Amino acid sequence: MRTRFHDHLEQLADHLRAMCVRNREAIAMATDALLGADLELAERTIDYCAETAAMREDAEHAAVTLLALEAPVAGELRQVVTALQLVDDLTRMSALTEHIADAARRRHPADVVPEPVRDLVTHMGAAAVDLADAAVGVLTTADPGDAADIDARDDTMDDLHRALLAAILAEGWDNGTAAAVDVTLLGRYYERFGDHAVEVGRRTLYMTTGRRQDDEVAQSL
Amino acid sequence: MRTRFHDHLEQLADHLRAMCVRNREAIAMATDALLGADLELAERTIDYCAETAAMREDAEHAAVTLLALEAPVAGELRQVVTALQLVDDLTRMSALTEHIADAARRRHPADVVPEPVRDLVTHMGAAAVDLADAAVGVLTTADPGDAADIDARDDTMDDLHRALLAAILAEGWDNGTAAAVDVTLLGRYYERFGDHAVEVGRRTLYMTTGRRQDDEVAQSL
Repeated sequence: MRTRFHDHLEQLADHLRAMCVRNREAIAMATDALLGADLELAERTIDYCAETAAMREDAEHAAVTLLALEAPVAGELRQVVTALQLVDDLTRMSALTEHIADAARRRHPADVVPEPVRDLVTHMGAAAVDLADAAVGVLTTADPGDAADIDARDDTMDDLHRALLAAILAEGWDNGTAAAVDVTLLGRYYERFGDHAVEVGRRTLYMTTGRRQDDEVAQSL
Repeated sequence: MRTRFHDHLEQLADHLRAMCVRNREAIAMATDALLGADLELAERTIDYCAETAAMREDAEHAAVTLLALEAPVAGELRQVVTALQLVDDLTRMSALTEHIADAARRRHPADVVPEPVRDLVTHMGAAAVDLADAAVGVLTTADPGDAADIDARDDTMDDLHRALLAAILAEGWDNGTAAAVDVTLLGRYYERFGDHAVEVGRRTLYMTTGRRQDDEVAQSL
């Protein structure tokens, strides 16, 4: 009975990791499509994200089946409930990635990202891949240090986001209002992608240790 | 045993409704603070939203306790799992409202919303109150018709959001890039608030009937 529970839970964890790996691939593709004004890649990314989103239902079904058949308690119950919440974060990361690819698709063949902020968006794209990669790592190791590390990496994303808004608002911005609107929204998508990666780290830590990351920090003070 | 389950579930449902009622109050306050450049109201809204967000933990705890003590199956299990997901939507609505109030706070004493889009933002604020109100209704009645009605109301929000972006991008926009960035983000917050209200309707319907709204629509075709 317990063996079956752990087998099913391990399958569910594999499923979540697979969604997160796909988010990492997709955000890299979306950024390439955006910066390369690559319509074919943008469309491929959108399809890829839709497939990731479709994995949600299987994951939810697996979690609910575990609850129904095994009636877990304490730590095991916490693991299944957290898995259900992780599904939401991972699905949302996929939706945000799709928004980025969709901006590239909509504006094709025009460039969405004007020259003065190309470097910043390139770095935000790299930071997003980095964060998704770190989230995959925490989903694999459930290491508190790795989870804290995602928080630190997200500071980089937040700094880049602030710099992006500052660039749009700087005196010399002569790329027009339409580009300002596009870049504002793109910045928001990348930033939210990062927030969800952090949340994946926090929840995974709670799932396996029963401790909130804030507790970890409090203990380390 | 079953009576106790239903008492606890009813308490949890009350808790979710209370969060949603607070979101309806808060989004009205946030819009007033924004359009009135009212610093005191903006700060009060931010505090109020923080209190709503703090209700999350109690709701999650209640849901997990129900799972642990009662080990529900089938429809009852679905209700508890959906309640857990509703907590996320309701918390997110509160965070988005806080972002709107925070824009008013940050820019004070300046107006965030320039004259040409004041009417649109006023209508988006009213649409958001309307959507939150409808979500409270569905949480109370769990009526499929009411849930479908939220979808229709969200179309109004989406139309207003499109009109807002069009206004920013129109030839005559002479309110500068900073206002364009602010209004773009505000529009996004209102739109996402609406999306979560729709999600509350959909999930509540699924919680009580076991049917997805898409199935309802399919059946009515």
